[in-house]
Amino acid sequence: MRNEISIGLLGLGTVGSGVATILQQHQEDLRHKLGVQVAIKKVLIKDTTKERLSPLDSSIFTTDIEEVINDPSLDIIVEVMGGMKGAKQAIENALRAGKQVVTANKDVMAEHGHELLKLADEKKCDLFYEASVAGGIPIIRTLEDGLASDRIAGLMGIVNGTTNFILTKMKQENMSYEEALVKATELGFAEADPSSDVDGWDAARKMVILSSLAFSTEVRLEDVLVRGMKEIQAGDLQIAEGFGYTIKMVGSSNKDEDGIEVAVEPILLPNLHPLASVNNEFNAVYIHGEAVGETMLYGPGAGSLPTATSVVSDIIAACRNLLLEVNGKRLHAAQHDLVIKEDKSCFAKYLHRLLVNDQVGVLTQLTAIYSKHGASLQSVMQHPAENEDQAELVLLTHRISREQHLKVIKDIKSMASVISHYRIEGESAT
Amino acid sequence: MRNEISIGLLGLGTVGSGVATILQQHQEDLRHKLGVQVAIKKVLIKDTTKERLSPLDSSIFTTDIEEVINDPSLDIIVEVMGGMKGAKQAIENALRAGKQVVTANKDVMAEHGHELLKLADEKKCDLFYEASVAGGIPIIRTLEDGLASDRIAGLMGIVNGTTNFILTKMKQENMSYEEALVKATELGFAEADPSSDVDGWDAARKMVILSSLAFSTEVRLEDVLVRGMKEIQAGDLQIAEGFGYTIKMVGSSNKDEDGIEVAVEPILLPNLHPLASVNNEFNAVYIHGEAVGETMLYGPGAGSLPTATSVVSDIIAACRNLLLEVNGKRLHAAQHDLVIKEDKSCFAKYLHRLLVNDQVGVLTQLTAIYSKHGASLQSVMQHPAENEDQAELVLLTHRISREQHLKVIKDIKSMASVISHYRIEGESAT
Repeated sequence: MRNEISIGLLGLGTVGSGVATILQQHQEDLRHKLGVQVAIKKVLIKDTTKERLSPLDSSIFTTDIEEVINDPSLDIIVEVMGGMKGAKQAIENALRAGKQVVTANKDVMAEHGHELLKLADEKKCDLFYEASVAGGIPIIRTLEDGLASDRIAGLMGIVNGTTNFILTKMKQENMSYEEALVKATELGFAEADPSSDVDGWDAARKMVILSSLAFSTEVRLEDVLVRGMKEIQAGDLQIAEGFGYTIKMVGSSNKDEDGIEVAVEPILLPNLHPLASVNNEFNAVYIHGEAVGETMLYGPGAGSLPTATSVVSDIIAACRNLLLEVNGKRLHAAQHDLVIKEDKSCFAKYLHRLLVNDQVGVLTQLTAIYSKHGASLQSVMQHPAENEDQAELVLLTHRISREQHLKVIKDIKSMASVISHYRIEGESAT
Repeated sequence: MRNEISIGLLGLGTVGSGVATILQQHQEDLRHKLGVQVAIKKVLIKDTTKERLSPLDSSIFTTDIEEVINDPSLDIIVEVMGGMKGAKQAIENALRAGKQVVTANKDVMAEHGHELLKLADEKKCDLFYEASVAGGIPIIRTLEDGLASDRIAGLMGIVNGTTNFILTKMKQENMSYEEALVKATELGFAEADPSSDVDGWDAARKMVILSSLAFSTEVRLEDVLVRGMKEIQAGDLQIAEGFGYTIKMVGSSNKDEDGIEVAVEPILLPNLHPLASVNNEFNAVYIHGEAVGETMLYGPGAGSLPTATSVVSDIIAACRNLLLEVNGKRLHAAQHDLVIKEDKSCFAKYLHRLLVNDQVGVLTQLTAIYSKHGASLQSVMQHPAENEDQAELVLLTHRISREQHLKVIKDIKSMASVISHYRIEGESAT
């Protein structure tokens, strides 16, 4: 019986230092849980001159990645270096060297997850990636084990803390998008270049990972419909509120007999929906299981210690498997071929906000467009526009296909301006 | 390599039929996940004459429990018969016979869980009990695995759907307690005798299970401070709302260097607290981890299929262990001796609602009581009472100990009526 498990840590940034801190502080708990010592024995760093607050002794630092991956004394490789190419290669090499691997890398798992999980199965090694989605929320584990017995019909996630923080400030403190972004940057919730967050690609990568797991298939980034939060125009939040809805950047993924539909976009959620009250930088994933009904997991989506908590939970799982000699027994082969639904099979209600010339017959012309495409309307509201000769119209449709929605929007553009348009999820109480 | 796992089902009521249904509907998924067939081979029923909708063939039904537990061909015994004595004995006998056991029985796990888990360890068998707390929410698994790396500082749960449903109706539809209870009974959310729910004992049992797990110690039912929802008086919800709080029946469990404090009682939660928007029959458990910060799991707390989902997830876990031959390797020995905090070490803010005679000097007399016990006040508000000679006072304290709170309440009773009193959790935004 071994009495120690040795870890190689790739990266000692925000998450890496968190992992080192938690492993050190919890030595006693870990020994109680596992019966062995768990110790970091080698650490890949980039810059040897940097001052570090980590509890680790610098004698175990190296700048040579091979020295970590090929060290035969190491049992588990923890990849928290980030980035794409080097990290992917590192995970691949570690698996080929027969190491158990834990990663927090959403970019790698979204683009190469299927391939790497297959390699892990082949090499009979564990590849855990809980921290790659929604930092401190144990969502991967819940989909794999907690709801293992259920068939997931759909899931919706607020999986990007930056955009959720910005939207919360815009709604609760009436800030403009620009003001809220500055605030998010000041507080460290937004990166210097926030485009991956605000354009929806960060959330889309997470939805690739979650959807693949939830539906046991191989979703790819190009399958996700992505609309960024810049689609949200001044006044939209107030208009939504007037109908009893909250605008949130939501990743959604649904499955029915026609296939799977994955999207990341600003949508209208009824105020009473559990996701509507997820505010600030918090994340949440709402799951609709056929048997269990509605469940939701809520928590911090990022941050050094929350993310490190997920990494260390994965390390503990890998340790347990090592001690029982059952690593790599959780086969990842997809059960279903991927079928992405066509626009004509994706149904929802929509809100269309338009600017029209305020003249006789315009409403007739407009509603004729909806009729032409078989899209029936639930309500039409007119507001005065800034320019006296114009009027603002807010139209709510009944359930129509995305194809109908897009055709209507295209035709409307020939006679009016489309200020904004949103998919509506569920019914508001108003 | 075996190609089938056989299950003995004790009980074919609400949860048992749900288990049978899910196992039948998901045969293909299970075979994909596990590589074997999972089949119910024997079922204990009470009444052989009853018509049943279950998909099972009645040839496998028996009224003799020994025939199930002692059948050497069965691998897993699933206890969903409910009740206390017979169920406890059945679990014990099944473990002694070397079976893996899955139970949904909160009463047995709250009163005999420590003993049964020890027996399971001794017999090297699994004893899973996810469905015993918060039906469809994978909370046990999250505490065991998802947050395995974190130290839990506290948890709060809305773990009784009946009382949460009643409180929601009282708040949102202005129903009286009695009206809401009738509604809950009609909808099947309350039992014929609702006392175990409304008096808090159902929630207390769940808190025993959760606290023992979260703090790795052996909490007992008598350690829980329990106040039922009958403590809530007409007008209390409105008064709380005026201060920006929502009244919820909450089980709370906290740990610090002085020990552990476990309570089930109606408390005041800030409206923006994630638990405050958990409505109707839904359950939620809010966890405060030292590293991860705040997380919450939300979902259905009861119901045939949600609860059965948790049971089947446990069955799958037991199957995986059987296939890997690693059952009973998750030792349950408590890491810490139980230390329950004394009242003088439990600190909180309180709201006191009093009825006093409206005469000169009464407020001086009253505040003298608070001063005498070193309890400082944050605010005092006076309302007119029904009787002209009286006044209603609502006092909010600063943080005081439960000992101070109880002494103040006791002394006040000599000069005024105490209508109601509540612990306050956190700060409202108002």
